[in-house]
Amino acid sequence: MIVQLRPGVVVFGFDKPPKRVPRCREFHPISSLKPKEDMNLDKVYQNLTVPNHTKIALVVLDGLGDIATESTGYRTPLEAANTPTLDALAKRSALGRMIPVAPGITPGSGPGHLGLFGYDPLEFEVGRGVIEALGLGIDLKAGDVAARANFCTLDTKGLVTDRRAGRIDTPVCEAQVELLKKKIKKIGDVEVILKAGKGHRFVVIFRGKGLEGPLTNTDPGREGQPIAVSKPVKKTAKSSKAAKVVAEFYKQALPLLKNCRPANGFLLRGIAHQPAIPTFEQRYGLKAAAIAVYPMYKGLAQLVGMKKVEGTQTVQDEFNAAVDALKAFDFVFVHVKYTDMYGEDGNFDGKVKAIEEADAALRVLLPEVDVIAITGDHSTPVPVKGHSWHPQPVMITSEIAGWDGLDRFTERAANSGSLGIFEAKHLIRLLQANARRLDKFGA
Amino acid sequence: MIVQLRPGVVVFGFDKPPKRVPRCREFHPISSLKPKEDMNLDKVYQNLTVPNHTKIALVVLDGLGDIATESTGYRTPLEAANTPTLDALAKRSALGRMIPVAPGITPGSGPGHLGLFGYDPLEFEVGRGVIEALGLGIDLKAGDVAARANFCTLDTKGLVTDRRAGRIDTPVCEAQVELLKKKIKKIGDVEVILKAGKGHRFVVIFRGKGLEGPLTNTDPGREGQPIAVSKPVKKTAKSSKAAKVVAEFYKQALPLLKNCRPANGFLLRGIAHQPAIPTFEQRYGLKAAAIAVYPMYKGLAQLVGMKKVEGTQTVQDEFNAAVDALKAFDFVFVHVKYTDMYGEDGNFDGKVKAIEEADAALRVLLPEVDVIAITGDHSTPVPVKGHSWHPQPVMITSEIAGWDGLDRFTERAANSGSLGIFEAKHLIRLLQANARRLDKFGA
Repeated sequence: MIVQLRPGVVVFGFDKPPKRVPRCREFHPISSLKPKEDMNLDKVYQNLTVPNHTKIALVVLDGLGDIATESTGYRTPLEAANTPTLDALAKRSALGRMIPVAPGITPGSGPGHLGLFGYDPLEFEVGRGVIEALGLGIDLKAGDVAARANFCTLDTKGLVTDRRAGRIDTPVCEAQVELLKKKIKKIGDVEVILKAGKGHRFVVIFRGKGLEGPLTNTDPGREGQPIAVSKPVKKTAKSSKAAKVVAEFYKQALPLLKNCRPANGFLLRGIAHQPAIPTFEQRYGLKAAAIAVYPMYKGLAQLVGMKKVEGTQTVQDEFNAAVDALKAFDFVFVHVKYTDMYGEDGNFDGKVKAIEEADAALRVLLPEVDVIAITGDHSTPVPVKGHSWHPQPVMITSEIAGWDGLDRFTERAANSGSLGIFEAKHLIRLLQANARRLDKFGA
Repeated sequence: MIVQLRPGVVVFGFDKPPKRVPRCREFHPISSLKPKEDMNLDKVYQNLTVPNHTKIALVVLDGLGDIATESTGYRTPLEAANTPTLDALAKRSALGRMIPVAPGITPGSGPGHLGLFGYDPLEFEVGRGVIEALGLGIDLKAGDVAARANFCTLDTKGLVTDRRAGRIDTPVCEAQVELLKKKIKKIGDVEVILKAGKGHRFVVIFRGKGLEGPLTNTDPGREGQPIAVSKPVKKTAKSSKAAKVVAEFYKQALPLLKNCRPANGFLLRGIAHQPAIPTFEQRYGLKAAAIAVYPMYKGLAQLVGMKKVEGTQTVQDEFNAAVDALKAFDFVFVHVKYTDMYGEDGNFDGKVKAIEEADAALRVLLPEVDVIAITGDHSTPVPVKGHSWHPQPVMITSEIAGWDGLDRFTERAANSGSLGIFEAKHLIRLLQANARRLDKFGA
């Protein structure tokens, strides 16, 4: 045998187990897990954070991860794509896979991105009204209370007969929102901001002092019920004020809609304020810029204090803008949407092309960064046609990331990478480390 | 391909996800940095749990995991076995390895199975008396206090001279337990249930209102000491009553044994009540059946509310029974004991044959399920001749599990799998996800 551990020394025989020493207790009460609050890992990281001049890029190909099944010829889009840039990077990178939230949990875009930004998505939860508002490109301010709204149909008794008002067309929705906007601009000292979405959907923002959510939904959840009264989930002076504002908004808005058919009412859900989240710069000492085509992703980046860069249309625009942004910022987040869209459509070839387009476009960025991570916010597998829990592949390249001996950046290559499988919230710490922005812990 | 999981039966269409049931909460308050104790991951999962018609099987080859050493020709039993069914599954499955409890911790059967059932074995601890009772096929009820008992030898002063009474034969033990049973049926309002085990071992169950454990052992731990007095670990009205019952049991039982030689006394250990554990159906929305030949495994499954299926003798019986059970149940747990037994014996060829037998037997189950996991509750490596901490291999097959490009289901193949190495308690969540029984988290 070539490999020996202390050859000839039998430390313990397998046939004769060592005599047991008395144990502290024969039996341990069921009791349990100690609360973790004493052990704040974020504080530890914060104390280790040091400044540096290094530049970091986080490139998110939305929904990048995929699965190989019979229906896809046992290949994933990443495996099928022609990716010379990613291949060249893989040859000098550390690879792994990331669990977006927790095993088996499929994240929405909000939790998916918060995790990538290093904010535990179980700890930092963002209300659906806020996400919806971000998706419509509304610049939320801290303290704004946002709600997602649906037009609905009410009968003469005020009971909901259709929770989606027959799914009215977008122009109808826009016209009705315009009507409300013209008449309702303020409720007391609280500004009311309305914006139409698709079909029967719109958002309502209440902006003013001393407001907070969450409030309960006015959506009764099923037909045949009246519009519910929105109440504070936890009663405070601020949430009570918010509930009063919502009630007054209904009082003013419903009469304006009374002649509208079929959308003569509306229901509010996910009513909450924009959470106060410590910024990227506070947490990581990184001045960060965000580049995305779709408003929701710019909005999510703004939530954590990134500066959004406007005006990009194509994927190549985005990477060009990232190069520019790095002149003034330490960190740039680039969001590419199309991988996710084709995944949602179950369009294998489309997802392959979206990957190839990003592969070509990101080349301009490489000479400008010291550290780059390429990953997704979650998987959107073609066979699933939707988001999933499958860990997304991730690749970190830097002078000191190390090289795993892998030739390509694919899900299966990543299974053998030195990063292993880890929760996405840790990625930012690995980027800080690669950028030499984390000091040594202990002597 | 020979192996099929519910061929052609689209239980849930990918294009038409099952209708959502209302969740406990539509919206979870945002707040910001919440202390982690509020953040109960199990609650998050519970809120995401949705019903579906999908069928799930968990096949446990007890002690399946093994290690390759010089003594085994650097192969594991899984590597040496001829496993056409498992091989065919591996070609369309996701593989990984599971840590039964925590790194380096070798689990007993109780923690091993609780982990597989998704109950953190460090949180849900089951007393040894309870495990022993389950192993003897006693149907425990909530609140029963169980103790494992050893016959011992006492000298004239009442000091323990042999803690195992010279390891008396089983028939002697049975006769003495019979003697006690005849004379002691109740202590006050508490029913006393006795059952002989192997050699000097038996169990005592106290069944009645207002009892709870844990109590300290009466086993002094070494010879030359008197039988210890059992006391509540934590004093409550219930545990004090239980301690009184134990004391009274000794008072009545010892005189009955005074002429027995060498077993004129007995020692109690692991005295505890059956913990109140939320059931499988409450936690996962799964109606579950358990199929095992050995009583302990049926008992462990009953602890979490699974329905035990009786009457199986052979491994093939078990898988046939699983097929039947799936007509009425969502989830079936199949336990195969022999892999562990041969591992304990250090019998490499025996363990290989046990794996091959299971490989052939499980084939009938495959067309009946949408999701199947095949794994062990821990490793019982042939060179160790006992349970061990080595992560056991696990394989999950479903239409959307993905394929890792691996040809066989072995420990080393599993090292390259997409599931990585994870704690066994998460397995159930991956099965829920694969069965499309977990909703998306956040927007």
